Amino acid sequence: MAQKHAISPTREENYPEWYQQVVRAADMAENSPVRGCMVIKPWGYAVWENIQKNLDARFKATGHVNAYFPLFVPLSFLQREARHVEGFAKECAVVTHHRLEAGPDGELVPAPSAKLDEPLIVRPTSETIIGEMFAKWIQSYRDLPLLLNQWCNIVRWEMRTRLFLRTTEFLWQEGHTAHATRQEALEETDRMLGVYADFAQDFLGVPVIKGVKTPSERFPGAVDTYAIEAMMQDRKALQAGTSHFLGQNFSKAVGIRFLDDSGSEQHVWTTSWGMTTRMVGAMIMTHGDDDGVVLPPCVAPSQVVILPVIHKDEVRSQVMEYCQSLARELAEQSFAGQPVRVEVDSRDLRGGEKTWSWIKKGVPVRLEIGPRDIAQDSVFMGRRDKGPREKKGVPRSEFVGGISELLQEIQQGLFDRARKLRDTHSHKIDSRQEFYDFFTPKSRKRPEIHGGFAYAHWSGDRSEEETAKSDLGVTIRCIPLDSPEEDGKCVLSGKPSPKRVIWAKAY
Amino acid sequence: MAQKHAISPTREENYPEWYQQVVRAADMAENSPVRGCMVIKPWGYAVWENIQKNLDARFKATGHVNAYFPLFVPLSFLQREARHVEGFAKECAVVTHHRLEAGPDGELVPAPSAKLDEPLIVRPTSETIIGEMFAKWIQSYRDLPLLLNQWCNIVRWEMRTRLFLRTTEFLWQEGHTAHATRQEALEETDRMLGVYADFAQDFLGVPVIKGVKTPSERFPGAVDTYAIEAMMQDRKALQAGTSHFLGQNFSKAVGIRFLDDSGSEQHVWTTSWGMTTRMVGAMIMTHGDDDGVVLPPCVAPSQVVILPVIHKDEVRSQVMEYCQSLARELAEQSFAGQPVRVEVDSRDLRGGEKTWSWIKKGVPVRLEIGPRDIAQDSVFMGRRDKGPREKKGVPRSEFVGGISELLQEIQQGLFDRARKLRDTHSHKIDSRQEFYDFFTPKSRKRPEIHGGFAYAHWSGDRSEEETAKSDLGVTIRCIPLDSPEEDGKCVLSGKPSPKRVIWAKAY
Repeated sequence: MAQKHAISPTREENYPEWYQQVVRAADMAENSPVRGCMVIKPWGYAVWENIQKNLDARFKATGHVNAYFPLFVPLSFLQREARHVEGFAKECAVVTHHRLEAGPDGELVPAPSAKLDEPLIVRPTSETIIGEMFAKWIQSYRDLPLLLNQWCNIVRWEMRTRLFLRTTEFLWQEGHTAHATRQEALEETDRMLGVYADFAQDFLGVPVIKGVKTPSERFPGAVDTYAIEAMMQDRKALQAGTSHFLGQNFSKAVGIRFLDDSGSEQHVWTTSWGMTTRMVGAMIMTHGDDDGVVLPPCVAPSQVVILPVIHKDEVRSQVMEYCQSLARELAEQSFAGQPVRVEVDSRDLRGGEKTWSWIKKGVPVRLEIGPRDIAQDSVFMGRRDKGPREKKGVPRSEFVGGISELLQEIQQGLFDRARKLRDTHSHKIDSRQEFYDFFTPKSRKRPEIHGGFAYAHWSGDRSEEETAKSDLGVTIRCIPLDSPEEDGKCVLSGKPSPKRVIWAKAY
Repeated sequence: MAQKHAISPTREENYPEWYQQVVRAADMAENSPVRGCMVIKPWGYAVWENIQKNLDARFKATGHVNAYFPLFVPLSFLQREARHVEGFAKECAVVTHHRLEAGPDGELVPAPSAKLDEPLIVRPTSETIIGEMFAKWIQSYRDLPLLLNQWCNIVRWEMRTRLFLRTTEFLWQEGHTAHATRQEALEETDRMLGVYADFAQDFLGVPVIKGVKTPSERFPGAVDTYAIEAMMQDRKALQAGTSHFLGQNFSKAVGIRFLDDSGSEQHVWTTSWGMTTRMVGAMIMTHGDDDGVVLPPCVAPSQVVILPVIHKDEVRSQVMEYCQSLARELAEQSFAGQPVRVEVDSRDLRGGEKTWSWIKKGVPVRLEIGPRDIAQDSVFMGRRDKGPREKKGVPRSEFVGGISELLQEIQQGLFDRARKLRDTHSHKIDSRQEFYDFFTPKSRKRPEIHGGFAYAHWSGDRSEEETAKSDLGVTIRCIPLDSPEEDGKCVLSGKPSPKRVIWAKAY
């Protein structure tokens, strides 16, 4: 008999639908009545809060400070950088009026007398509005570098949306920095790419590859876009964070000038970098299994959940007291520099239902505590990274003393498992036939899961990318920073190529 | 000779202009190129981050969890509650298109083909969109109470704006809760009013009065609006946080029903409550003086700033080492349950300029450290709550050992000073003449600062409020919760009144 799972369909059966069901079962987010906009529910938002807290500390440790800039960007600002406006004009929410009034049929309509002289765009990104302020604030080399970040909401009108992964409104942080020299701006771009990579790997357990984008995948207005790329369990790539070297494109478009130390006027060099609520989806698709979400301990809102097992009313107070004292003791332990996060679930629900709710939510460690466990002064433990029925008794003191180590083991184990999956499905590919085979579904039973990362040569020609995209839906995810120079021939055109790049289907 | 001050004009000379200059001198915020929207600069945003952190912990301690709901509210949602839409229709940003395209003259315009079927309103508050989700989530009494909060941005199209105090876009938190009974919802409304009052007083040092609003000042759609009211130094009132008992108005408008424990269908009872970036302005206007911002230690991004005094290059390393070790030692002390926040300012600026920059920013304690202080193992200390030239030497160990107490003394002192000002300008007023005198400027030299809180009788008649507003620009700020029953006569109409209310000019 096939093993039963909490999530239907399984990943093998239908990966995209599995993802939707996992998010729903964990109660992390759902679609709202506003087209393309999601509601982030408490469990999902608590994950985002942990992401924010950790990432924010990394930004501050690298010298950045937070600020806040307007939600609205005047249309004329967006137009200042030609490629920038071209990249965003097709997907932006436009504010045209500032008042409603009763229309001819009594229903409210935008008041014609309150039409804005200039439409406002709900920020799809803030380079131009922040650049405008930079132009005001920066006069001299003494004002540089200027290292700012903001946490905010962003709107890009998407036609096909998916919870966390692609939504019309999403939450993110956007760093914006200005520097006196090209070299310093390049170093900043690289530094923040490194911060993102470390964060993704160490905190979310998501292995990533650092690379640079090809011109066709660049941020509109950037000189170079760097990104970290991860592989999901359906072997598709997901861009998990980007760091842009903007050169002097925006400083010239907006007019951000400074006097250098020799007194001559220069344009500053800028960067921008962002990570979004998409990371929550990336993390779910990296670690989730057929029983639901699997949270790495670092990001889990609760790292340990205690489930009191109360079959008779007369044991209630004894069991609850034991659970509460255990929770207090655990909260005095620390993991990754913070107190262990423990929750006692005393809801009046059937035991099985309760246990499964926490499995689906992905809590790393579950403890079931009943009179028998108390008698033995032990805990009955289940780990989310093991099978749901694979539980064992552990003496209480041993469990409490080892909690930090256990959480670290789970954190590392999830990362290792994800890296193994990625490495298993990463291949050097040297012929066109092999390339097409790699990206063609093998069976009708599992149409979604196939392919992976193809390390193949590319001559640098745009037409090769277009062929791969139209024939296979495959794009160049990045040119890995650590990709060695190696003479070869483009797998598609046969033209000479200096190095391999990563080709994949992508989110 | 008159004493010189860092801020011109002084409070006495021109209070509104003093406020603008103080915010500018502290580099906390400035106007953006987007009409009515402000840019919150790093020092101002750090204050907001401290407010968020403390307030959020208070919400969580009272059982609330955070979530996130869409920025956009469909027009039809806003229309569901008649008074609600009436209250917000006149000041909302309306999104009508989702794409730009080249117009006849080549400039970008909203694409006619991308006109939305239904306009979207940028949230002026979220009762209706959150209510829509509540209606989906709540089925049974077991789902209640539902206690949510969100931190987000809000847009209300304001015609006259002032940094922090009134801006078209602002940041806030909005709590939204649903309950099975009227009583529970009333208790929640009261609980959150209490959380706001404690926060304002204990954390920001802003003394407040808890009260209920008259019908004319109610939140559109509320049954009752409770608020905390503070007095600024120009004796005007400022509403610093509101907690609304919404009754079943929104649950009936939106359709939020549940099965109670006897199986019969009921509408839930809801509340909402909010506090905004306005509190930063309230705090500045409560404590600021003619030298700039004065920050209560609890909310100060830096509680102690260390200013190395280096007149000769050969003492530089000795002075810097002493300052750094002092900073480390101070950071090991704690105040209000957190490590003391210390900053060493090693910028290459003239000493006076540097010192004054921190005075204007409002840092509670400044330490100047030069070779002479090091020789005596002492610190040369200035307190922001004292005059700028009132400094004294303190032995280092005494200072470090007493830092927590010192910060507490400053925190309490600011609160006491503010309460004294409020009490001095709060009067029982029993005649019409006295009332008019109280609210009439006394001299042309200081037209702004006059009046205060008039505790005067009000019969409950709307026309009395209208008279005070049109004659004097005075409104009823609240009916204090602790106002005793006391027979009297309305000061304006002579009609019988059961209690005194607070009348004042207001922000």
